[in-house]
Amino acid sequence: MSLITLTTDFGLRDWFVGTMKGVIAGIAPRASVIDLTHDIPPGDIQSGAFALAAGCRYFPKGTVHVAVVDPGVGSRRRAIAVKTTNYLFVGPDNGVLSFALRKQRIKNIRLIENQDLFLHPVSRTFHGRDIFSPVAAHLSAGLPFSKLGPVLEKYTQLSWPEPRFGKARVEGEVIYLDRFGNAITNLDAESLRTLDAASLEVHTLGRCLCPIAEFYQAVPAGKPVAVIGSSGLLELAVNGGSAKKILRLKIGTPITVSPLSPSD
Amino acid sequence: MSLITLTTDFGLRDWFVGTMKGVIAGIAPRASVIDLTHDIPPGDIQSGAFALAAGCRYFPKGTVHVAVVDPGVGSRRRAIAVKTTNYLFVGPDNGVLSFALRKQRIKNIRLIENQDLFLHPVSRTFHGRDIFSPVAAHLSAGLPFSKLGPVLEKYTQLSWPEPRFGKARVEGEVIYLDRFGNAITNLDAESLRTLDAASLEVHTLGRCLCPIAEFYQAVPAGKPVAVIGSSGLLELAVNGGSAKKILRLKIGTPITVSPLSPSD
Amino acid sequence: MSLITLTTDFGLRDWFVGTMKGVIAGIAPRASVIDLTHDIPPGDIQSGAFALAAGCRYFPKGTVHVAVVDPGVGSRRRAIAVKTTNYLFVGPDNGVLSFALRKQRIKNIRLIENQDLFLHPVSRTFHGRDIFSPVAAHLSAGLPFSKLGPVLEKYTQLSWPEPRFGKARVEGEVIYLDRFGNAITNLDAESLRTLDAASLEVHTLGRCLCPIAEFYQAVPAGKPVAVIGSSGLLELAVNGGSAKKILRLKIGTPITVSPLSPSD
Repeated sequence: MSLITLTTDFGLRDWFVGTMKGVIAGIAPRASVIDLTHDIPPGDIQSGAFALAAGCRYFPKGTVHVAVVDPGVGSRRRAIAVKTTNYLFVGPDNGVLSFALRKQRIKNIRLIENQDLFLHPVSRTFHGRDIFSPVAAHLSAGLPFSKLGPVLEKYTQLSWPEPRFGKARVEGEVIYLDRFGNAITNLDAESLRTLDAASLEVHTLGRCLCPIAEFYQAVPAGKPVAVIGSSGLLELAVNGGSAKKILRLKIGTPITVSPLSPSD
Repeated sequence: MSLITLTTDFGLRDWFVGTMKGVIAGIAPRASVIDLTHDIPPGDIQSGAFALAAGCRYFPKGTVHVAVVDPGVGSRRRAIAVKTTNYLFVGPDNGVLSFALRKQRIKNIRLIENQDLFLHPVSRTFHGRDIFSPVAAHLSAGLPFSKLGPVLEKYTQLSWPEPRFGKARVEGEVIYLDRFGNAITNLDAESLRTLDAASLEVHTLGRCLCPIAEFYQAVPAGKPVAVIGSSGLLELAVNGGSAKKILRLKIGTPITVSPLSPSD
Repeated sequence: MSLITLTTDFGLRDWFVGTMKGVIAGIAPRASVIDLTHDIPPGDIQSGAFALAAGCRYFPKGTVHVAVVDPGVGSRRRAIAVKTTNYLFVGPDNGVLSFALRKQRIKNIRLIENQDLFLHPVSRTFHGRDIFSPVAAHLSAGLPFSKLGPVLEKYTQLSWPEPRFGKARVEGEVIYLDRFGNAITNLDAESLRTLDAASLEVHTLGRCLCPIAEFYQAVPAGKPVAVIGSSGLLELAVNGGSAKKILRLKIGTPITVSPLSPSD
């Protein structure tokens, strides 16, 4: 058995994702296809990159991960595939693969140029169906990686917002808002450990928000809470509610973590 | 082949459900995973329980049903698995399994405590990925049920709203509103048969709404109609429209059924 | 391996689609089921017909395509199956299959009447689960087509809006609005070639909208552009935006294509 995952902004209301799976089934009938998500906001490369990075490592070794958030489809942007020690990644070279690749050991990068692998005629608007799906299917069915096209030295990287370390504080920002309205930040457990304090509290937009706790229901219903979430990153939530709505958090909202002040 | 179904409130816009499937694929590569639904309103244990109860019996014997609507994740709520004559059920012990279990013959109930089965480190916010998915995968791949943990005598049950029988009337309530705006009630065909009348009519909120008919288009477009729906329960609909919007029905709206009055 | 696709208006928020897959798994455990889409607007037979037509041809030969947009469920509308040189189609006889069949060579049409194939008791509101899913599963598992029921000569066809050819102009209309807000028209590349001009422009609602280009980013961000889309049909888009919102296009909005005027 071989696995292919799909991460796109195609949504599920049209037939787009279904046809990608039809193309894959025609080339690699034994491959299983798993949707990571298709609800990336249209054209939002950064959210697509984050979703792929957050999800990809839970799949077995050998999985082919396809990500298509591709506002430049049909233009001269390149198509690439990246082989790491664990996975193959396939997508446009616009940064959508780059957050996932930060945590992978890269073995080989190739331009996707071998037209024999594509669905013809290749449309100018849907390379997810005509290029990325058939290439992923061929790789999943055993095609040697070197058949894709020439070796590339570099690929496009989005800049990951690194935490900033101050005196008794770590500064970061909201990088993703999930379905529950939880706000995921760029602060991981390791960056918080530099504060060397037993108890921490989170500030945002000039106010002290909440202490960091172990789980959502550690605070009363309707109250804010910060936890190390399932991606290993600090996450702001409201027990039983939406932190996005109640705390008015957005992608980019600055977050500061510091030792719990004695007055609390 | 073995089947696993998933019923959650995780939605499909993030990578959560995809990673559950990745974890399952790593443990039970031959299992097929079918989504029952992931659009239970966040934290709405009762709607999750109803969806699982309505859907589970259409799957082949031996299916492992996983339900994760779990606002108490990370707290001290227990994780359980229930073996019935037809299925295995896996989820938090907060009642989400209980409506489905009303119609099943229970053979064994176990606490899920065997840490060897979990994905480590176990997060405090996503037991769907770290506990319930790997446990379901192991069960699907043949793990003996007794390996999960100690036997439990009781599990948490939500109270099912029973029909009330009056003089020439049966009273119930709306318990689910579906995508079409149809309002599913707690009145089944059997409870209506106690009225012993050839023709019945439905009252709600003080007005006579409609007779009970055979199918949606038995009334003109835009008109209300009541039918025994696909779950075997009385359902209020509007032909070509939304009963929820047009009749202003909500979960909990009282419904009365009585013999058709002669003046109608 | 055998493939079954599903195109419905059942949505994914309830358990309806999941139970269709459960029924299929019980009859044809080796079949793979692929969702084309379940987000057809409730009861919108024409959009369902278009989605099926746009998507069906990307699947391998032998695929069973099931389409259930079925506002007349439970009434006397017929259930049919159609065998073409490439595929089997299954659905209600209300036109939902007809756009797909325009491009297929039909070999045989049958009424679905063989009750032995159905799930009993057959509900009056959910033939997707009780009739179409089990019939598709049996066909996928090798049931001879002739076992379904008697041969039919005709099936219900929706009228496809044909392009109209004027003097140095081709007239059509918007027939589908996709998730990105792109407006797909009924004008295909062939109909535009009759204009015999190197460059074309698109008019709608009395204004000159844009030239026809090769891909979305051929125009600056926020500007309208027309391309031959992935279905082979002329499509109006806005680079980085929603043509539906910005250009106020609706299904049925008239579109005219003519040679680029010299003043442009």
